[in-house]
Amino acid sequence: MSALTQASCEVCRIGVPKVTESEAQELMKQIPEWSLIEVDDIQQLKRQYKFKNFVKAMEFANQLAEVAEAEGHHPGMLVEWGKVTVTWWSHSIKGLHNNDFVMAAKTDALLNQ
Amino acid sequence: MSALTQASCEVCRIGVPKVTESEAQELMKQIPEWSLIEVDDIQQLKRQYKFKNFVKAMEFANQLAEVAEAEGHHPGMLVEWGKVTVTWWSHSIKGLHNNDFVMAAKTDALLNQ
Repeated sequence: MSALTQASCEVCRIGVPKVTESEAQELMKQIPEWSLIEVDDIQQLKRQYKFKNFVKAMEFANQLAEVAEAEGHHPGMLVEWGKVTVTWWSHSIKGLHNNDFVMAAKTDALLNQ
Repeated sequence: MSALTQASCEVCRIGVPKVTESEAQELMKQIPEWSLIEVDDIQQLKRQYKFKNFVKAMEFANQLAEVAEAEGHHPGMLVEWGKVTVTWWSHSIKGLHNNDFVMAAKTDALLNQ
């Protein structure tokens, strides 16, 4: 289990620095299934999970929603038949904070429950 | 309550004709809050619903998931903090079938429950 999975989200406010490029590259090694993408100049983490039907996809989305509420940090979740595409970024800083890598690792950990 | 809300989805298979442009324009009048968009050459119906937080957005997504399962026709649902963006189209015909307009109307009807 990675160090990220064990971590919790810190409070993230406007003005808190984003992760640097080298920090991001280092953290990505702990979540190798995720992609670093850029949408409207905002860096985000993205991963698609596959499931055998819509109900299973929704079950996963609900599990993730529960973790998100507990941590006070919320993803984008695109639920479709047999798949959920998750994106993480920090709205307040318009980019990636350590929290987003923590949440990506926690999202992966749900699969192994 | 519109006629669409009362309808059920018909079985939609490969080869079934898409709605024509004029049929689409006529059906759009019954779901005025929806937009007709095109993604990768596939026509889709799209609407964003706003909620007061993430939990309320998930509640709506779960209600919609139940209707989708009952009808055997499934949307794309992008759940974010305080909003759900719903898209409807028919994968089997790579476009819009009457079913999609029926489901868009049923999605709207959830708000009035």
